[in-house]
Amino acid sequence: MPTDATDRLLLGPGPSNVHADVLAALARPTIGHLDPAFLSLLDGVQGALRRVFRSGDDALVLPLSATGSAGMEACLVNLLEPGDTAVVGVQGVFGERMCAIVERCGARAVRVEAEMGRILEPSRVRAEIERSRPRVVALVHAETSTGVAQPVEEIARAAREAGALMVLDCVTSLSGMDVRFDDWCIDAAYSGTQKCLACPPGLSPVAFGPRALERLRSRERPVQSWYLDLGLIGAYFGEQRVYHHTAPINMIYALDAALRRVLDEGLEARFARHREAHLHLVQGLEALGFEMQVAPRERLPMLNAVIPPVDDEAALRRRLLGEHGIEVGGGLGKLAGRIWRIGLMGENARREVVDRLLGALRSLL
Amino acid sequence: MPTDATDRLLLGPGPSNVHADVLAALARPTIGHLDPAFLSLLDGVQGALRRVFRSGDDALVLPLSATGSAGMEACLVNLLEPGDTAVVGVQGVFGERMCAIVERCGARAVRVEAEMGRILEPSRVRAEIERSRPRVVALVHAETSTGVAQPVEEIARAAREAGALMVLDCVTSLSGMDVRFDDWCIDAAYSGTQKCLACPPGLSPVAFGPRALERLRSRERPVQSWYLDLGLIGAYFGEQRVYHHTAPINMIYALDAALRRVLDEGLEARFARHREAHLHLVQGLEALGFEMQVAPRERLPMLNAVIPPVDDEAALRRRLLGEHGIEVGGGLGKLAGRIWRIGLMGENARREVVDRLLGALRSLL
Repeated sequence: MPTDATDRLLLGPGPSNVHADVLAALARPTIGHLDPAFLSLLDGVQGALRRVFRSGDDALVLPLSATGSAGMEACLVNLLEPGDTAVVGVQGVFGERMCAIVERCGARAVRVEAEMGRILEPSRVRAEIERSRPRVVALVHAETSTGVAQPVEEIARAAREAGALMVLDCVTSLSGMDVRFDDWCIDAAYSGTQKCLACPPGLSPVAFGPRALERLRSRERPVQSWYLDLGLIGAYFGEQRVYHHTAPINMIYALDAALRRVLDEGLEARFARHREAHLHLVQGLEALGFEMQVAPRERLPMLNAVIPPVDDEAALRRRLLGEHGIEVGGGLGKLAGRIWRIGLMGENARREVVDRLLGALRSLL
Repeated sequence: MPTDATDRLLLGPGPSNVHADVLAALARPTIGHLDPAFLSLLDGVQGALRRVFRSGDDALVLPLSATGSAGMEACLVNLLEPGDTAVVGVQGVFGERMCAIVERCGARAVRVEAEMGRILEPSRVRAEIERSRPRVVALVHAETSTGVAQPVEEIARAAREAGALMVLDCVTSLSGMDVRFDDWCIDAAYSGTQKCLACPPGLSPVAFGPRALERLRSRERPVQSWYLDLGLIGAYFGEQRVYHHTAPINMIYALDAALRRVLDEGLEARFARHREAHLHLVQGLEALGFEMQVAPRERLPMLNAVIPPVDDEAALRRRLLGEHGIEVGGGLGKLAGRIWRIGLMGENARREVVDRLLGALRSLL
């Protein structure tokens, strides 16, 4: 790999930059997945994740040995059986992906769609829950393809009242904005390590609450994925330490170090830092002629969907990367070629990082 | 993690020790999964894996973003549909796991079983293939639970003659003994990074040959796993670089460095090194009163199933780890409490490593 590529400022939709302490942890010598020293580290990681998800001791919380998309699949395949119904909020690419996975489970996806770049009105989702009486309601908290922050709590409460299980995608939101697993009545949630947690990509933290665990026990058929079967995986993370697959040791070292940084900073302070960096970015971009795609009250702090003031957005992105070493994301799906996605995640949610981007843009425009 | 745990000698069934160069690569700054510098590194990794699998340019070869068990699931879910039949060779835990996954695909697993610690007679598998006319034949090359080296080529040829697709588990064998994807008529194979490749756990190299890719295109239903759908994953690894999920960047840096070490040494030299270390180990262990579980001609070089000359094998393993920092594996499944599994994989397949283990055992017995 060319050495100049090691100095990237990663302001796309993830991965974000990883702190030197986390990289150093990643490179510690590998040890065995049944070594008492490793198991004790793993206990610590589970406890830290529980605090970040704000979930109770009765939840099964663990890092899945795959990326965030596998976390999405794990939540859906463990809770759904053929013939079940899931109400899915679709505000962008990741809601679409949920529908595709629901259907691969042999279940029926009932879509509630938002206009592109807008939130889903909770009342519409509530009405659909009451009409469909689904097994599962699935929602993306921070839709990375559009930059919209979806209100969750009202929908999750409606799901619980209807006896449905609430699945929440927190891939982009976790540790960058408030996520309250217990208080909001979430039953299953998943995230990724490469966004606000500021760890390399490769693991998917998941949380399964008591109602989701009860659903696991009462299934009629085995989970269609052996690798993502949380009943089997949970036995390794439980007292018995039953071998399921070899845990990705070094990635878990890195997650341990990344979670320490998150908890040392404090969740509220971290959320505030993400909000402040976001506001500073919006002000600077608007001064340069960029338009924000999302209305102020519906914006994510860590993922900014913006319309660049140029005809050829791809050329400008290439120059930003080639001449300034700064990566920003292009649009995904229907928004390809139209918007940029600027991530301020984890270590990068800082005024000086925003200033570096604004300075580079000023010199290129 | 206690610092003394960082000095483990990993002589279990994997992970094996990782060279400092590979750990250093792992800790390089994370960059984006669509960054041209990363995509070029990924091309190199795919080329190197092709050489290690000895597969042609018409195969799709890539590192899956999950561990070896996900590679097993990927091969089976991509090739099987409900109602299909798979003939599965069962010589231990990993053959059993294949049957479980076949059944979770809604397919029928026809088992051909070997006596524990023995190979499957190719003629018996051939007869079952001719009787069942399956869609898939699945076999474990190096059964890590028993230490048996399964002859592959005759069975793979029988599968091809019968129009079946041959799936081979090379988790423990790849780069430690001969694996010939094309010459042996393998259609799909998978491995893990944490065995003879001497990379941390977390990725599963897979190879899909042209007949397996044709099967993917002619499926009637979508693959039940979205995350492991090789049609979707292949689009990211192809010319188009279509986003599927965020690749585990740092783990791929490490795999790149580990594969360079493999190819710099040369496959034949590496196989010979594994054989020599194995013979040295057997001689030393027999002198200490250990019994080998497997007949000489059926033994794996990198995974030695041995019966320790003590009543309480677990106590001896604990002392080996606690007093000497050496990890060996216990038995799995039916062999728990009865055998040890001593791995000499990758960096550890060396006479001086064997001598360190023998010295420690001598002092404890």
